[in-house]
Amino acid sequence: MNDIITRKLNMDELILLALREDITSEDITTNAIIQEEAPGIAELICKQDGVIAGLPVFERVFVLLDSDSKFDCSVKEGDYVKKGQLVGVIKADIRIILSGERTALNYLQRMSGIATHTKSIASLMSNSKTKLLDTRKTTPNMRIFEKYAVKVGGGYNHRYNLSDGILIKDNHIDAAGSVTRAIELAKEYAPFVRKIEVETENLDMVREALEAGADIIMLDNMDNEMIKEAVYMIGDRAKTEVSGNVVKERIKELMDLGVDYISCGALTHSSPVLDLSLKNLRRLKN
Amino acid sequence: MNDIITRKLNMDELILLALREDITSEDITTNAIIQEEAPGIAELICKQDGVIAGLPVFERVFVLLDSDSKFDCSVKEGDYVKKGQLVGVIKADIRIILSGERTALNYLQRMSGIATHTKSIASLMSNSKTKLLDTRKTTPNMRIFEKYAVKVGGGYNHRYNLSDGILIKDNHIDAAGSVTRAIELAKEYAPFVRKIEVETENLDMVREALEAGADIIMLDNMDNEMIKEAVYMIGDRAKTEVSGNVVKERIKELMDLGVDYISCGALTHSSPVLDLSLKNLRRLKN
Amino acid sequence: MNDIITRKLNMDELILLALREDITSEDITTNAIIQEEAPGIAELICKQDGVIAGLPVFERVFVLLDSDSKFDCSVKEGDYVKKGQLVGVIKADIRIILSGERTALNYLQRMSGIATHTKSIASLMSNSKTKLLDTRKTTPNMRIFEKYAVKVGGGYNHRYNLSDGILIKDNHIDAAGSVTRAIELAKEYAPFVRKIEVETENLDMVREALEAGADIIMLDNMDNEMIKEAVYMIGDRAKTEVSGNVVKERIKELMDLGVDYISCGALTHSSPVLDLSLKNLRRLKN
Amino acid sequence: MNDIITRKLNMDELILLALREDITSEDITTNAIIQEEAPGIAELICKQDGVIAGLPVFERVFVLLDSDSKFDCSVKEGDYVKKGQLVGVIKADIRIILSGERTALNYLQRMSGIATHTKSIASLMSNSKTKLLDTRKTTPNMRIFEKYAVKVGGGYNHRYNLSDGILIKDNHIDAAGSVTRAIELAKEYAPFVRKIEVETENLDMVREALEAGADIIMLDNMDNEMIKEAVYMIGDRAKTEVSGNVVKERIKELMDLGVDYISCGALTHSSPVLDLSLKNLRRLKN
Amino acid sequence: MNDIITRKLNMDELILLALREDITSEDITTNAIIQEEAPGIAELICKQDGVIAGLPVFERVFVLLDSDSKFDCSVKEGDYVKKGQLVGVIKADIRIILSGERTALNYLQRMSGIATHTKSIASLMSNSKTKLLDTRKTTPNMRIFEKYAVKVGGGYNHRYNLSDGILIKDNHIDAAGSVTRAIELAKEYAPFVRKIEVETENLDMVREALEAGADIIMLDNMDNEMIKEAVYMIGDRAKTEVSGNVVKERIKELMDLGVDYISCGALTHSSPVLDLSLKNLRRLKN
Amino acid sequence: MNDIITRKLNMDELILLALREDITSEDITTNAIIQEEAPGIAELICKQDGVIAGLPVFERVFVLLDSDSKFDCSVKEGDYVKKGQLVGVIKADIRIILSGERTALNYLQRMSGIATHTKSIASLMSNSKTKLLDTRKTTPNMRIFEKYAVKVGGGYNHRYNLSDGILIKDNHIDAAGSVTRAIELAKEYAPFVRKIEVETENLDMVREALEAGADIIMLDNMDNEMIKEAVYMIGDRAKTEVSGNVVKERIKELMDLGVDYISCGALTHSSPVLDLSLKNLRRLKN
Repeated sequence: MNDIITRKLNMDELILLALREDITSEDITTNAIIQEEAPGIAELICKQDGVIAGLPVFERVFVLLDSDSKFDCSVKEGDYVKKGQLVGVIKADIRIILSGERTALNYLQRMSGIATHTKSIASLMSNSKTKLLDTRKTTPNMRIFEKYAVKVGGGYNHRYNLSDGILIKDNHIDAAGSVTRAIELAKEYAPFVRKIEVETENLDMVREALEAGADIIMLDNMDNEMIKEAVYMIGDRAKTEVSGNVVKERIKELMDLGVDYISCGALTHSSPVLDLSLKNLRRLKN
Repeated sequence: MNDIITRKLNMDELILLALREDITSEDITTNAIIQEEAPGIAELICKQDGVIAGLPVFERVFVLLDSDSKFDCSVKEGDYVKKGQLVGVIKADIRIILSGERTALNYLQRMSGIATHTKSIASLMSNSKTKLLDTRKTTPNMRIFEKYAVKVGGGYNHRYNLSDGILIKDNHIDAAGSVTRAIELAKEYAPFVRKIEVETENLDMVREALEAGADIIMLDNMDNEMIKEAVYMIGDRAKTEVSGNVVKERIKELMDLGVDYISCGALTHSSPVLDLSLKNLRRLKN
Repeated sequence: MNDIITRKLNMDELILLALREDITSEDITTNAIIQEEAPGIAELICKQDGVIAGLPVFERVFVLLDSDSKFDCSVKEGDYVKKGQLVGVIKADIRIILSGERTALNYLQRMSGIATHTKSIASLMSNSKTKLLDTRKTTPNMRIFEKYAVKVGGGYNHRYNLSDGILIKDNHIDAAGSVTRAIELAKEYAPFVRKIEVETENLDMVREALEAGADIIMLDNMDNEMIKEAVYMIGDRAKTEVSGNVVKERIKELMDLGVDYISCGALTHSSPVLDLSLKNLRRLKN
Repeated sequence: MNDIITRKLNMDELILLALREDITSEDITTNAIIQEEAPGIAELICKQDGVIAGLPVFERVFVLLDSDSKFDCSVKEGDYVKKGQLVGVIKADIRIILSGERTALNYLQRMSGIATHTKSIASLMSNSKTKLLDTRKTTPNMRIFEKYAVKVGGGYNHRYNLSDGILIKDNHIDAAGSVTRAIELAKEYAPFVRKIEVETENLDMVREALEAGADIIMLDNMDNEMIKEAVYMIGDRAKTEVSGNVVKERIKELMDLGVDYISCGALTHSSPVLDLSLKNLRRLKN
Repeated sequence: MNDIITRKLNMDELILLALREDITSEDITTNAIIQEEAPGIAELICKQDGVIAGLPVFERVFVLLDSDSKFDCSVKEGDYVKKGQLVGVIKADIRIILSGERTALNYLQRMSGIATHTKSIASLMSNSKTKLLDTRKTTPNMRIFEKYAVKVGGGYNHRYNLSDGILIKDNHIDAAGSVTRAIELAKEYAPFVRKIEVETENLDMVREALEAGADIIMLDNMDNEMIKEAVYMIGDRAKTEVSGNVVKERIKELMDLGVDYISCGALTHSSPVLDLSLKNLRRLKN
Repeated sequence: MNDIITRKLNMDELILLALREDITSEDITTNAIIQEEAPGIAELICKQDGVIAGLPVFERVFVLLDSDSKFDCSVKEGDYVKKGQLVGVIKADIRIILSGERTALNYLQRMSGIATHTKSIASLMSNSKTKLLDTRKTTPNMRIFEKYAVKVGGGYNHRYNLSDGILIKDNHIDAAGSVTRAIELAKEYAPFVRKIEVETENLDMVREALEAGADIIMLDNMDNEMIKEAVYMIGDRAKTEVSGNVVKERIKELMDLGVDYISCGALTHSSPVLDLSLKNLRRLKN
């Protein structure tokens, strides 16, 4: 999602909305004190070790305020950064820097926090076929930024939203009458380009989903023993996703059980931010 | 902010935007399987101990999808809830419940997480004059929800944004030439109903801010010794706010030093969510 | 897509935009002549034989103008209607009927035109496994209405848009270097819930796509002989979609060749409207 | 409407909406495969004979995605193009071309289809005073594009919408009590810069409209004999517009009857598209 | 424009925007003090003599905040009201009344100010054929309200905007080369339902406009003598509009000269408001 | 508010909305007559003496239509201008000038009218400590422009809106039970950075407000005698604001009474515009 089209069509409006959340009429403090245009510069410094994500969004905040703003990066998206390290230098009108600072950092800190958290789990899985997935448990109006941050951190994206993926849950199964019937209905209704995933809670459901032709079978809140049997039963006939109660300690075991995917809501809903700040703001000579 | 006007003017558009983030054309799974209107009901259950915040927002998600939706609460906003406790019951068309569930929970979990975190700190300060403040380090496009959650958790709000509060920081002081000059400029420019806060790093700055007539003096990243001297110097002539490096362990000391306010960015930027879920969804007989 | 959520989140804004396209300040003629509120009624009459689609959208136009408006249908969505037949009766303030009429009919006529055209082709395929698909060749800002109309007419939906389906075309293959490499890249990047479709122009490409694990193989602009070989080669290992130069006369042959899907852009880009009109508008006694 | 102001104020938002309809998060296929910026070029080729309309809109799609995009036309708006002819060359980042292609073509094909259809009728009327008019039977949210295409094809525009033209129809007359009273009310209420048009069904209505001072008299669904008498009766005292059941075969007769305008809804609601496509997309050397 | 359709499509968004201008997060004062829902009532009192206009807009402000709000009017739109007179009673949640009061009054006061000013001039013209017109010199984003207020005050509307009326000014004539050529171009380009108005500065221009078939001739900044000659020359062949330097003192003379229309920008750009206020707000017993 | 950030975030959308109010499809007159791009130039001339305000907004209208537009000012924002004086020169495509002219002037005339009115009062107060304030009695959707114009004219801004200032009025006091209780509630609820202002009607209320710790005391509709006593009672313990019945004649007396602020709604709600116009539009040679 780090491309100009996504930024123009899907990120800019959200970034502008965030800027308007912070500036409903004007930045009074800055306007009181700095009444002339003047080029400025400031350094983006890391205050914690972690994985950086969101540099294009950070820059975009300033560019949307003034298209002459420039951000020169010293690191690349996804790099591991150290406390005290210079991440880059922003050059813009000094008032642009002051007024955009908080919004730009709010995005960058959150996205980097997610990438850092994701990397810490994904790196445990680097030598296996098992992949780490995000979920739809994202912060409202932050999904595009948060799912992108998961990718930067080495994770993979599950479906983006309710319109572009099929996931048949317990309530859908109840409504349909059976796993089999639910899958039939989904195959008939949904665009044929979609894979069909079914959430299962026990081996009977796994078996039924498999026979009805599910493409992906979610093993939800199962213990290791049951997962083992399910994976064996499924073989190559479907992909497997483990969900629920996924903590770092359990990753190794799940990998050994041979599951294809492990999904983890905490990546997006409970990552602490990575602390970053703008320092040494100063006016440039014209 | 828990009033109908704020919801209509300032929350609804954001909630609708979040719903559209999750449903760009339709909820395919639900539409594939449930093709008729049918009244449904589901229980909102707590999966962790904590402070609940955001119940009106949770309900609003469903009401915006269908104005006949109803949410019957068993608890009050700000109540302490226990793992396993029934928080309330949502009644709506079964498809409304399924399609709105994730967005409603994403708001509620985050807001309750913030309230829980805030309460855990604010409760340490309950017998003192010192108050706990939030900051502008909020998630983009979530400020109104997050600042409200801080209040529910027993914290207090700092300025809402750059347009409605004056906070003179180091960069502003540099640009003005001195603390005194910066305060003069702010008094001349800003609406006279604003208090003027100045960020200080040492006792000289505190003294200058005081003499220039600052209403609030922020003591930024000072050690306890310096804070003590600053508080003594300031007396009743201005309010004091301690900021930077505020961890739970230090709260007691800061209270003893007699500061008026302690601000803490982590309340909004790094609180883990409070786990809640919708259970026992079922169709009601018409 | 005929559900309340889709209407609220994804159709209403477009319908309102269309109403504002037709009424930028007021309906001057109606306001000049009818200056009082008065309940009215009018009949929706079919002026051509065809398949009706869009009744909920037709009603929604009037409901968005005044929530007391009611539309009583005499037929069901997807029914075959005859010239002269009464389709339903709209009851609303007489000015609402006059001002909303054109926009409501513009939607209904176009959607019914698409459903009628779709049905005329889909009905040829009713006793086979082959299904008729739409494409992304829709009228700008009409996709949700047009894809829904295809379904009402008995067709099936291909991917909704560029964000929710993968279709690797010649240009993507060129950029990747080979079919195999393109499929690898897609598997790595795209959410794992997506099927991967590849557009092929000859049997070598079909073979390569198959070996690289494509889920769906589009046979683009091939003659019957080549399609026959491709279908044989593919067997059950992937789904097949025939695209390009799909005219009614050829449908029977393609079905006999055993292809899974036939896609046809003309369904949405070149269907003539189905003629319908509002008649016998009259004022009701209060 | 082919001017920068109309594009900025009245087209851009609709074009962006159409792009967002097709790209709700990102173009996954393109982003999976092409991960670097690279200049590209592609040829716009005609696949059918017809009249080209919408070239500035075609270009605008790419320019809105990236202001560096350039479209070099080989033909002019309104030119007659032949199957196989090169219409122009688009130069833009290769991902911009791939992601914008469908939306750009959807506009261009539809607009050219309308221009082609319009020209085929308008050319029959080239040596007469009679002019061909469009109607408000346009596709929702496409009116500005479709009415412009009618002009490019040699037709003329009737009123743009309900706010900027007065057309008194049967229902208005019923509500007013008589043709005379309806015209009086319109003259009193509507801005004096508007002409007043009245829809008539027989000669008595024509006579009354004329005496009440109508500027334009629509002869709706009349046979040739009645039209002849109406035109004679009206003389120079008002303009005449024939509407209803206008097919190509009848154009010559209507011209001979001396009517001023013939309006035809099918121009905008039932023109098939003109087939065009982007070919030979390739990466340019930097 | 006092109809439900205009309010829904063309006024509501502007009113909501105005409410959001006044409430960017919440009404802090009201929320601080009134923390429960409670029905309230307040009286709308006139503080100056004048013509009331905008009552439906006044009500709409409160209804948009809460659909249960009710406004009971004691007077009718356009009535002459006296200082101290009760205009109506608003019933709504007490917080709705407090938060909506200023926005509702800002609309009502301005609209009533315009109606009062308009009436003071229009009443001078009551026994003549001459009519008073507004212009496009309206306050940005207030046109629909201000043009409606002119009508309530007894004036008439000139064209609504640049898209729905033709007015050929000096610069257009210069660009075309002559009055004659400009009129020809307008007749060819503009929808045939538009009248063509030409601004003239001397008798030669009047003559040329007349011969070229202008429907309306504006006599701009002419003295009475020249107007007299122009009116005589024009006779019944076109309508006449006097514009420029229209002050009350001159109205009688212009009427005697027999001009059809007099336009006056001051109606909308310089009318002082009519003073109104909400009084006796009190809580109702539930 | 004369900075790039405010323009981008808070003014542009309103200006575009105003442009779309005036151009709903196209400027038909201009498009009929000028069908080619051509650089143009026109002079902005003052037709009345006054204070100029809004030059950046005037320019912005044209820049938003075409970023190549340029406005060269001969005067500075806030300058006193004379009838006949050249204010500046606008260079842009000739159609841009024609289509943007009215909207640009509507802003500039209104803002300059407010600045002129403000200056006429503020200049009376130039040698005193008393300052002139605006109110929230602004034209809907014009607040940011009107409050800025007040500043340009030498006035000061009161609170911007209901979200960023506390003003406890009679109704709030009634609801709270007493002045004291109302102030307590406000101190508890509102962000601590806000000053608290209380509206008082007599000396008892003044005394109570003072004792409860109000920061600003509004003396509403008091006569000079009572104001004198109130000012004496208050001394340095709070700021004083006189409101209600503020006419020019009374300014001198109020200054002598030593009040800090005088607020005047008429500055924004009843200033007549300053007449300005664009003259000598001509095509430039390319």
